[in-house]
Amino acid sequence: MTVIEEIAYRAKIASGLLRVIPSIARADALNRMAGKLIECKEALLKANAADLAGASGLSDAFQKRLKVDEKVFNYMVKRLQEAAALPDPVGRVIEHRTMPSGLDVKRVAVPIGVLAMIYEARPNVTSDAAAVALKSGNAVILKGGSESLRTNMVLAEAMRSAACEAGLPEDVIQLIPTADRNAVNELLQQDKYIDLIIPRGGKSLIQAISEGTRIPVLKHYDGICHLYIAHDADIDMAVKLVINSKCQNVAVCNALETLLIDRDAPALLKQRIAQALREKNVEIRGCERFCAEVPDCIPAVPADWDAEYLGNILSIRIVDGIDNAMEHIAEHGSGHTDGIITSSDELASRFIANVDSASVLVNASTRLSGGGDYGMGAVVGISTDKLHARGPVGPAELCTYKWVAVGNGTLRE
Amino acid sequence: MTVIEEIAYRAKIASGLLRVIPSIARADALNRMAGKLIECKEALLKANAADLAGASGLSDAFQKRLKVDEKVFNYMVKRLQEAAALPDPVGRVIEHRTMPSGLDVKRVAVPIGVLAMIYEARPNVTSDAAAVALKSGNAVILKGGSESLRTNMVLAEAMRSAACEAGLPEDVIQLIPTADRNAVNELLQQDKYIDLIIPRGGKSLIQAISEGTRIPVLKHYDGICHLYIAHDADIDMAVKLVINSKCQNVAVCNALETLLIDRDAPALLKQRIAQALREKNVEIRGCERFCAEVPDCIPAVPADWDAEYLGNILSIRIVDGIDNAMEHIAEHGSGHTDGIITSSDELASRFIANVDSASVLVNASTRLSGGGDYGMGAVVGISTDKLHARGPVGPAELCTYKWVAVGNGTLRE
Repeated sequence: MTVIEEIAYRAKIASGLLRVIPSIARADALNRMAGKLIECKEALLKANAADLAGASGLSDAFQKRLKVDEKVFNYMVKRLQEAAALPDPVGRVIEHRTMPSGLDVKRVAVPIGVLAMIYEARPNVTSDAAAVALKSGNAVILKGGSESLRTNMVLAEAMRSAACEAGLPEDVIQLIPTADRNAVNELLQQDKYIDLIIPRGGKSLIQAISEGTRIPVLKHYDGICHLYIAHDADIDMAVKLVINSKCQNVAVCNALETLLIDRDAPALLKQRIAQALREKNVEIRGCERFCAEVPDCIPAVPADWDAEYLGNILSIRIVDGIDNAMEHIAEHGSGHTDGIITSSDELASRFIANVDSASVLVNASTRLSGGGDYGMGAVVGISTDKLHARGPVGPAELCTYKWVAVGNGTLRE
Repeated sequence: MTVIEEIAYRAKIASGLLRVIPSIARADALNRMAGKLIECKEALLKANAADLAGASGLSDAFQKRLKVDEKVFNYMVKRLQEAAALPDPVGRVIEHRTMPSGLDVKRVAVPIGVLAMIYEARPNVTSDAAAVALKSGNAVILKGGSESLRTNMVLAEAMRSAACEAGLPEDVIQLIPTADRNAVNELLQQDKYIDLIIPRGGKSLIQAISEGTRIPVLKHYDGICHLYIAHDADIDMAVKLVINSKCQNVAVCNALETLLIDRDAPALLKQRIAQALREKNVEIRGCERFCAEVPDCIPAVPADWDAEYLGNILSIRIVDGIDNAMEHIAEHGSGHTDGIITSSDELASRFIANVDSASVLVNASTRLSGGGDYGMGAVVGISTDKLHARGPVGPAELCTYKWVAVGNGTLRE
């Protein structure tokens, strides 16, 4: 057995043991993991400083994601504690009926088994992923960006020893202990042991992973998120929602990328939105009609309608009514998060029924389409897949189910 | 556009229209489909006779599956009517909460979109698949075994015209109108339009399909189903359950393939089971210990423990307690359907908690692990996948969900 194969095998064994470990022991482990993180804070920050030194040639944004500062550290601890306190998704009876045959039939939530997370050099994902995996009764294999290896090793060691103290097999959490890129390729071949791969990162990375494995992959593709402002939208609300959706954090998947404004919306609305965006240093790339109404915008080119900027840019298009807006979203959207701003229930209902996205919002910021704001707690990402899990992926989404049917000598007639 | 690409494109358009067609119109279409089948019965039987004449060189079992006789025909009609009467899975609110932010958050069941069914020359699957797809609000592309093409063309035409009369786009149901094998390969490339492929048939076919496409595939692999008879099982019940599980229909995926008997079970139980199986002409392939106790059994070879016979053969192994039984199932089972026969609640609970199969049964026939006996109505198959749908796949399993969040100018803080 190679190192990677053995890790996968151990995870499978651990996941089998997890099936019979009670909820309370998993919650205890999560609390102990938070405690261990606090205990090892000094070692963690030291390892992180070494990682940061190694990454000194990389971009500011990269280093910012890699850095564990006071705020990130507290957040990591808090997420583990929150996960411990959440209701347990495992064992939930999703359906229950007694059939005329006398068969008692239950659909019961159970863990998926073994998860493999492949992600960027962001140490907080290491603890978040472990929290969500353990909460859902899964064993997890973690492969973070190699620039964060020192930090992740301290984290994984702390969480493993906490799991052990809580009476869990320590292999419920395992870290791929190498920066070797072949490790990922080898991981993708372990379909005998791994039930689900969750990659995070660029679209090309995720595509390469799903094409290189027979293991199911939960995909987190891009978020080309839209807001459509109907003719009857409240102007103040529209301005606030656009600014919050675009600017609250430009670098995330549920940030607004394209704004669609109804041609019958008042001129004042367009002026005020343009002004508010400029105050926030957001570059506007407008369609011809928008540029004709609002001076000094950059004309959008076709590629703008398919762009996920993840930066201080917003494309704006004037559309001819709700149908035209929905057509634009169907053609250019990524099925992540799309919303309408309107005071009409009828328009809202049409938008909800027609737009086929993981999150469909009415009069709300696109930034709200996440685990916390939906009441799901810690999540490992936001799925753009349609099957199994759509939108935020928390502990409940990392469960599957089994059918438990109890008879009394019940036969098929 | 090629013929296949156009079919896929039309399905996508139809699925978009289906999103806004009310439940009652889909139910009406299903009832009209049943009516049209009755209307075209003569043409259908004629086409089927022509298909059967073309398949005269093939095996009896093949021809039996291909043949639409009175019984099969009535069953096809009934399944469409039953589907019409079932509760609608689309639009079901799976979760609903109002967050402290004021955001009203719902998880709502919605159709997956476009399904492609690839299956054997079994005409009843054509109408069953159309029933389940339409019930779940999906457009469906049907590709049945080419030997059934004439029968399927009559069926598809009848169902399409019924859909049309009910005000649905006729392209909610489309049949690949060719026996050309390349059509399947081309279908697998339509990831722009098709959301899910459901292949039925041999394991190698399903494997080839999942490796040849980027579209998600819902897999229906083999059923190597086990019963474990604990030491305390009621003898009469055990005999009845074994015979029903093995013999009620030997050719199906939830038929019993391996029987595990506790070493402490009474000798009488083993004798009576062997006798009952022989009366049903079932060949017994026993482990060394079983053969020593029960004369005239064929000694099992290692391959027997991994065999899906789908015929009049049963492998029997004596195991050393429940843990040994569960180890055997974990190593040799296919995660389809596995059961225990016991009078002990404690043993039953251990078995339920530990066995990681789509269906886990207690004191019930393995033949009960299906849509009808679980109260799910018509199904397109029994999934051995862990993700999205596990076990019987009915209308509810052919839905996904979306998040609908309604605010009042709600922002992310």
